[in-house]
Formats: sequence, C-alpha cells, structure tokens
Amino acid sequence: MAAPRPIELNGRPVADGAFPLIITPLVGRAPADIMAELAAILPKRPDLLEWRVDCFDAIADTARVIETARRIKHAAGPVPLLLTRRNASEGGQSIALDEPAVVALYRQACAARCVDLIDYELSNPPQYLEELRAVSAANGIAMVMSYHDFRRTPDIDALQDRFEAAQRLGADIAKVAVMPADAQDVLTLLAATWRASQSLRIPLISMSMGALGAASRVTGWLYGSAATFAVGQSSSAPGQIAIEDLRAALTALRRALPG
Amino acid sequence: MAAPRPIELNGRPVADGAFPLIITPLVGRAPADIMAELAAILPKRPDLLEWRVDCFDAIADTARVIETARRIKHAAGPVPLLLTRRNASEGGQSIALDEPAVVALYRQACAARCVDLIDYELSNPPQYLEELRAVSAANGIAMVMSYHDFRRTPDIDALQDRFEAAQRLGADIAKVAVMPADAQDVLTLLAATWRASQSLRIPLISMSMGALGAASRVTGWLYGSAATFAVGQSSSAPGQIAIEDLRAALTALRRALPG
Repeated sequence: MAAPRPIELNGRPVADGAFPLIITPLVGRAPADIMAELAAILPKRPDLLEWRVDCFDAIADTARVIETARRIKHAAGPVPLLLTRRNASEGGQSIALDEPAVVALYRQACAARCVDLIDYELSNPPQYLEELRAVSAANGIAMVMSYHDFRRTPDIDALQDRFEAAQRLGADIAKVAVMPADAQDVLTLLAATWRASQSLRIPLISMSMGALGAASRVTGWLYGSAATFAVGQSSSAPGQIAIEDLRAALTALRRALPG
Repeated sequence: MAAPRPIELNGRPVADGAFPLIITPLVGRAPADIMAELAAILPKRPDLLEWRVDCFDAIADTARVIETARRIKHAAGPVPLLLTRRNASEGGQSIALDEPAVVALYRQACAARCVDLIDYELSNPPQYLEELRAVSAANGIAMVMSYHDFRRTPDIDALQDRFEAAQRLGADIAKVAVMPADAQDVLTLLAATWRASQSLRIPLISMSMGALGAASRVTGWLYGSAATFAVGQSSSAPGQIAIEDLRAALTALRRALPG
C-alpha cells in the first residue's frame, strides 16, 4: 500500500511535508482588500495561499495582477502562493476576460515568476492545458489541474477518471471538488481519493463541498488528500471551515489516532 | 433522509441524547480491579459503561456477578451499565461456561435488574437470542445484538445483512465491529452504517477496528453510528482511543463542522 504523496515545490515538500497542507484563499476585490485579508490570515499560519484572481477587480490589467502577486508574496514570506482563476462554470466569479486572455495572463504570471503554483481546470480546451503546462514547467511553477462539480457527486469511476486525466495531462497536483447530496456521496469522494492515491504518482487534493461535505475537509487526508482549504477571513467555496477550527480538529484527530 | 437514531433506555435518550455516546469498557478480573478501574474512569465522564464479564474471573459464580454488577451500578450512579459476555470466537476471553450457562447468567442478571443493557452475539443459536430478547424485554433491559469479525471487513451487503438481522430478531440496538485491511474497508464499514441508518428503525453502533480503523471511532457518528467505544483505563478491542483524546477530537470536529 503506497503512502499518499505530499505536495512539493521544486523537489521540496511544502511546510516540511505537513499532511494535509492547510490552504487559505484570498478573495479581495482590490489590492488593499487583499493585503488586509493577508494581514489577518498570516498570523493563522496557513501552509499555502490561494489567490482567487477571478475575484480581483483588475484581472484584465496584467501588470496590476503581477504587481499584486508580488506584494502578496513579499508579505507572505515563505508561504507559497497559488494563482487561481476559477472558471465561472466551476464556481468562480464572472470576469471580463475571454479564455485566450486568461491563458495569456497565466503565461505572463509564470514568466514573471510572481507565484509558485497555478490552478487551471481540466474542462478547458486541451491546447490551453498543454500550453500552460509547458510555460509553468519552464518557469519552475507547479500546476494544479482541477475539476469541480457544484451540483452533484459523480460516481467513483468518473471521479477516478478526473484524477487520472490530471496526471495524464502532466499536472503536478490533481484536484477534485464535488457537491454531495447525502453522506454516501461524501464517502464516494473519499473512496475515489483513496483509490486514486494508490494508483497515481502525483499528490491529490479533494473535498466534498457544502455542509454535508465538511467532514471531508477534516478527514480527507486519512484517505489521501494532501491539502484542505480553510477560511482565513472569507470563504471561497461552500462548507469551508475556519482555519482555527480546522487546525484544532486536525490536531485532536492526530492525537487520537494511533501511529 | 432520516436522522440516525440515538440510543434510548425505557424511552429516554441516554446522556440527554448525546450523539455519539462514549462507551468505556470495564475489563478487570476481580471486583477490586473493576472498582479501581471504575474510580479511574468515572471522572472522565463516559456516557455508558460496558462490563466485559468474560474478563471476570468469577464469571461462573452468578451471585458474585450480580453482586459486582450492583456495586458497579451503585458507584456509577446515572451512567447506564451494559453487560457483555464477548464470545471468544468474536474477540472475547475464553471462559469456563458453556453457552447454556451463559444464557442462564444473562437471564439471572436480567431478572435481578442489575444492569441496563445486555449484548449478545448474532452468531449464537436463534433460540438463545429469542430467549434473551424475551427475558430482557420483560425486565425493561435493552438488548444489543452484535457482530464482530476480527479478521476482515465483509462487503457492504453482508454488513447490511448483519444490521438487518439484529432488527429482525428484535434488538434494541445493532452493533457491527469489523477489521479493515486498508482505508477502503474503513469507508465500506461507514457506508454500510450510513445505508443501514437510513433503512432501519433501531439505533446502530459500528466501528472499523485496529489502527487503520481508528478514524471510524471518531467520525462514525457522521455516518449514523450512535456510540463509540473509548479506553478509560484498559482497552477491550484493538484501535480504541483514550477517552480524553476521543472527546477532544469529537469536540473539535463538532466545532469545525457547520450546522
């Protein structure tokens, strides 16, 4: 039985190999909002920051995006930064950019090396996934390929297929987030994660969303999810738990579980 | 979607309906050991005590069993007492009594009303299950019917069948405890519990044993298990967690989870 893989950047495990990593989103609309969010979040010691750039008013201004990413990184010090434009069709905000412009933005952010990871949805056209894989790799930036379904939980084979697609397309990390209708759907997501963690060579991030799925945010690491998203100041998806509560639950679980 | 049912005694929920209940075993060999165990355990506020009478040296002396049960109950005050002779074939101690003598012991304990619940394995002959169901009911004592497999985790349909058998045979509570070979087996036990909690009308107790299964002792309530066993002073099955650690993890989980 293989041990699930931790998330690494340039060959080094993030946060000394903490499992799971706690990722906290930044969802401010303007630089000042984001810097205030960051100031509130950093004392809570997230392992990784996700800048949800689809929430950023100036997303169409590439220079401003890059400048803001640099400000975030400067303030965050050793905490890595993940840049995510979440597609509106997968739960993100509507933005003024068409997809070629989004790809261009990611390209320039990679070239500027102003972030440590990027996230791009598996549902995007293959040539864009391929292009961003190449440009991120060329700049030493890790790439998350992600799948979200805010309406339902696909069956275990369909979920496995999403994890496998990410690896096949060259992702460094595969992410799957789906909405449960009942507790069984939460178990299906966990079972798919466990199965994929046994067969794939890349680290996985998964969660079952909403109130019903919240347990997966606390226990998913037991089934192979290398990271979990927690609320620093504002949530970016339904069911996210406050970072303090998440960390307390993880600490108590670790103390309680043998080994 | 039905809410999983809490454990009741004479129509009243145990521990004000706490979900899950924390059950702590008493495994001493002599009355003095048991009373010392109890003195160490009671400050840790278990919701229910299980006296594992198969661990008791004087199990063949019915008067001594009843007297000891009375001493436990007197010391335990409002904390209900479950009497369990765990069959050696299901993980218990070897004892000097044959099965008719065990049935006679349970009968007399019921008639003496020195305990609040009894546990008897589904694998026993149907006439004994029927007899103990009748005598426990006649004395206002609840009956757990249980199934244990220390070697493996049966598939979900076989597990469902065990829960259903308990209800069909008139149990007040159905208990299933099985050993996992991997994380998927833990999810199978949780999925069977969830499914049974949606279709049965009696409360359920379930756990996946050993180190691998320990997570089920902390999260099983999210999938319908009404109680979890924790170590007060000595464990009675592999993977049991210290009551303090279990309670801390439950408290943190409850605080973290929405709703």
